[in-house]
Amino acid sequence: MKNFTSFADVDDYRVLLNKALEIKADPFGYQHVGRNKTVGLIFFNPSLRTRLSSIKAAYNLGAQAWVLNAGADSWTLEMADGAVMNGGTQEHIKEAIAVMSQYCDVLGVRTFPTLKDRDEDYQEVVFRKIMQYATVPVISLESATLHPLQSFADLITVAETKQKERVKVVLTWAPHVRALPQCVPNSFCDWFSEIDWIDFVITHPKGYELDPKFTKGARIEYDQRKALEGADYVQAKNWSSYKDYGQVISNDPSWMLTPEHMAGTNDAKFLHCLPVRRNVEVSDAILDSPNSLVIQEAGNRVFSMQTVLHELLS
Amino acid sequence: MKNFTSFADVDDYRVLLNKALEIKADPFGYQHVGRNKTVGLIFFNPSLRTRLSSIKAAYNLGAQAWVLNAGADSWTLEMADGAVMNGGTQEHIKEAIAVMSQYCDVLGVRTFPTLKDRDEDYQEVVFRKIMQYATVPVISLESATLHPLQSFADLITVAETKQKERVKVVLTWAPHVRALPQCVPNSFCDWFSEIDWIDFVITHPKGYELDPKFTKGARIEYDQRKALEGADYVQAKNWSSYKDYGQVISNDPSWMLTPEHMAGTNDAKFLHCLPVRRNVEVSDAILDSPNSLVIQEAGNRVFSMQTVLHELLS
Amino acid sequence: MKNFTSFADVDDYRVLLNKALEIKADPFGYQHVGRNKTVGLIFFNPSLRTRLSSIKAAYNLGAQAWVLNAGADSWTLEMADGAVMNGGTQEHIKEAIAVMSQYCDVLGVRTFPTLKDRDEDYQEVVFRKIMQYATVPVISLESATLHPLQSFADLITVAETKQKERVKVVLTWAPHVRALPQCVPNSFCDWFSEIDWIDFVITHPKGYELDPKFTKGARIEYDQRKALEGADYVQAKNWSSYKDYGQVISNDPSWMLTPEHMAGTNDAKFLHCLPVRRNVEVSDAILDSPNSLVIQEAGNRVFSMQTVLHELLS
Repeated sequence: MKNFTSFADVDDYRVLLNKALEIKADPFGYQHVGRNKTVGLIFFNPSLRTRLSSIKAAYNLGAQAWVLNAGADSWTLEMADGAVMNGGTQEHIKEAIAVMSQYCDVLGVRTFPTLKDRDEDYQEVVFRKIMQYATVPVISLESATLHPLQSFADLITVAETKQKERVKVVLTWAPHVRALPQCVPNSFCDWFSEIDWIDFVITHPKGYELDPKFTKGARIEYDQRKALEGADYVQAKNWSSYKDYGQVISNDPSWMLTPEHMAGTNDAKFLHCLPVRRNVEVSDAILDSPNSLVIQEAGNRVFSMQTVLHELLS
Repeated sequence: MKNFTSFADVDDYRVLLNKALEIKADPFGYQHVGRNKTVGLIFFNPSLRTRLSSIKAAYNLGAQAWVLNAGADSWTLEMADGAVMNGGTQEHIKEAIAVMSQYCDVLGVRTFPTLKDRDEDYQEVVFRKIMQYATVPVISLESATLHPLQSFADLITVAETKQKERVKVVLTWAPHVRALPQCVPNSFCDWFSEIDWIDFVITHPKGYELDPKFTKGARIEYDQRKALEGADYVQAKNWSSYKDYGQVISNDPSWMLTPEHMAGTNDAKFLHCLPVRRNVEVSDAILDSPNSLVIQEAGNRVFSMQTVLHELLS
Repeated sequence: MKNFTSFADVDDYRVLLNKALEIKADPFGYQHVGRNKTVGLIFFNPSLRTRLSSIKAAYNLGAQAWVLNAGADSWTLEMADGAVMNGGTQEHIKEAIAVMSQYCDVLGVRTFPTLKDRDEDYQEVVFRKIMQYATVPVISLESATLHPLQSFADLITVAETKQKERVKVVLTWAPHVRALPQCVPNSFCDWFSEIDWIDFVITHPKGYELDPKFTKGARIEYDQRKALEGADYVQAKNWSSYKDYGQVISNDPSWMLTPEHMAGTNDAKFLHCLPVRRNVEVSDAILDSPNSLVIQEAGNRVFSMQTVLHELLS
C-alpha cells in the first residue's frame, strides 16, 4: 500500500482487517514502527472524530502528530496551474503540500466537496493535486467523494461482532435537515460491496442513487422494509442526490429508522458514522438500544487509522 | 478517587497534597503511570493557563495529550434528552462524550456558567451530563461553579511556603470591570474551609455572599481591614453576585488591594489565580512585591494537574 | 547562546552551522538533549512553516511541544507599564510571559510589525518585553524586524549545496500585491553579510533601502541585471519601504524573476522563504526548474530550529 484513499489502494482487505484486529488486541505492541515518525494531519474542514482518533492512533503506534486547520486559518491556496497569483490566494498548493511533506512522514488530509460542481468533486481535483505534490504517503481523512477510514472502521466493527460466517448488511438512507455529501455512503459501498462474506443491500428513495462506480452493481432495493428483511447489520446515513447534484430531492420522515423498521431484521446491530441527528435520522430507541454499535464503531476509528499508519510507515 | 470535580472527590487531602509535593520534587519520576496514556482536554471556553499546564502535566507524567476547542469549532451540542434534532445542534452530548472517551484515558473538560440561570449553573447541568456519558475518569478544568485544580494549586503554594504550623488565609473580593463567575472563590472556599491547619476568613462587600454550600460556615467579615488583620496569605479575586445572580451590585474601588491594605497583615504573601487586572483588582505594588506568589501559584497548576492525573491513571 | 533572536546571539556561526549539518545527518541522534523538555510556541500571527517545522524539530530532538495561537484566541495583552487595566486588555504581558515560562523549557514567540510606527517596530517593543519577562530562553519565530530561523535555514541550504569555496549570493527585491514586513530581508542581510565565504549583494529599486544596521555596509546595486551577474545563489523576496515606512513605493513588474533574469548568473540556485506569489514575485519557470531549492530550504527550517533548540537546551 502506497497511499490510502479508497478500497482500491488496499492490496488484500483480509490481511489489512486481520492486522487491525491484531493491533486492537495489542494497541501498543507495534511502537517500533512509529518510533521517530511524525503524522501530519491537515483539515480543510472541521473534524472531531477523525482528528482525535488519528492523533490517538499515532500515539498508540509510538509516533507523534501535528494538526493544521487549513480552513480555520484563512490560509488560501491557489489550485490552478500557471496562475498569476495577484489576487486572494497566498500560496500555491504545489509548494504548500511539498513543504508540509518535509515536516512529517505521512500526511493525512481532509478535503470536502463543493456539492455544486459534480465533475470537480468526483474527479477529486483537490485531492489529486495533493497526491501529486506530496512526497510522503497520503491518507484520506475524507475527500470530496470518499471516507475510507470510516468504512474500514465499519468493517472492523462488523468483523469483530458477527455471530455467523455470512452476514447481511444494509445501508439505508435517512432523512436530515441539511444537504450532506455522499462521501460516507459512497465509501461504505466501495468497501462493503467487495467483501465476500457480506450480502450487501442499499436502500433509499428513488432519486438518491449513488455513483455506480462505487455501488459496483450492489443490489438496490427501493422498498426500505423489504431491504431490511433479515438484515444482521443496518448502517443509516443521510446523503444528498448524486443525480440532481447536491440537492435534497425528498426528505420523507417515514425513512427515519425506528424499532418498527428493525422488526423484520435478524435482531440487527445498528451502525452510524456519527454525528447523528437524533429523532431525525434515527430514533432514540435505536441509538439507546443494546444493539447499537455506534460508540464501538467510533472507537474503531483509532484502529482503522492505526492499521493504515502501520502499513504506510512499516 | 474516581473523578476530580470538587474537594468532595478527594479521599484524603493530606495524602493528595503530599503526593503533589513529592511529584514537584521529582516531576519525571512517575512516568510509568502515564506511559501509553492519553489525556483528552475539551474546552467549551478559552483557556491559557489550564490548557498549557495540563499539557505540561501530561508530558511530565510521560503521557500524551490532545486538545479540542469545542467552543471555537462552532460545533454545537444538543443537551436535551429526547430532542428532535432538526435545528442548529449537530451532535448530542451523549454521543460526543462517549465517543471522546474512546480516544483518551482520562477526560478533562472546561464548561462555563450562563451567569443568568442560577439553577442551571448550580446544578452543573452540563458537567453532570458529561460525567454521565463519559466512560473514562473526568477532571474538571473549571465548571459552572468550581475550579478545583486552581484551588489545589493554591493549597500546594501555601503548603510549600508557610513558615509556621497554622496560617491565616483570607479570601478578599476585588473590583473588576466585568461580571465574573463565582467558580474560583467558590472552589477556594470549598477547599480552604476544610484544611485543619488554616484559619480561613472571607471578606467582601455585602451582597456578594457566596453559596453557603461552598463556604461551609467559614467566617465572613464584611470589614476588609479587620479581615486582613494578621493574615499570612491573601487571595484576591473578583466575582459577581450569587444572590442577585450574575450582577455587579457594587464595584467599590476602595476594595482594590494596595500595600496600605496589607499593612495590618502578618507580612502576608499574595495569591491570585490570574489573569489579573492590574490597578483595578490589585495595585502594581502588590503584584511586583517579593511577597507576591502569583507566578509560583500558576506554576503549581502543573503539579495539581499532574497529581490528579497520577491518581486517576494509577 | 542564551536566546536566539538575531545573528548577534550566535557565539560562532561556523560552530552552529556545523552542528546543524551534523544534526541533519543524524536527526534522532541527540534525543538525550530533548528528553523531558517542552518547547512552548506562541504565535501572535498565523504561521504554517514555522509552526510545523518547530514542532517537528522538537519531536526530532525527543522533546514535546505545545502551541498557543495568542492572536486567534482574542486574548488581549496589556503592554504598558503602570496601566490601569479597566479597558479591553485582559492580562498584562508581565504575567502572561512569566506564567508561560512555567509551562516550558524554552519559549518560541512570533510577533509582527505594525508597519505604521517604525520606531515601535524597530525598537522591537513587544519582543523586548517578552525577553524581559521570560524566565526560560527565548527563540524568535519572527519578530517585527527579523526572522533568524529562516536566515539560518537559508545558510544551511547554501552551505550544503555549494560547489566551491566562495560563492556569490544575491538578495533581490521582487514585486508583490501587498505591503510586506522587512523581517526576512533584514535578517538575510544580518546573517549573510557576516559570512566570510560569501560575496553578498543586495539589489532593489531605489527607495527600498533596508535599515543599514542590518545591511552592515553590504554592496547595494540598483541595477538588478548587474547585481545578478555571476551569482551562485539568488534569494528573491518582496518588502515594503523602510524609508517611507510600510509603503509600496513602486511595484515594477520587470523585477519579477524569470529565466531571462537568471541568464547572467553562474547557473544560480534559487532561494525563497515561501510562501511565494507565483508569476508575481517569480515566474513558474524559476520555481519549477531543477535549480530551485525552495522545498529543501523549507525542509531546513526543521534543522535550523532543531540546532537552536539543541544549543539552548544543552
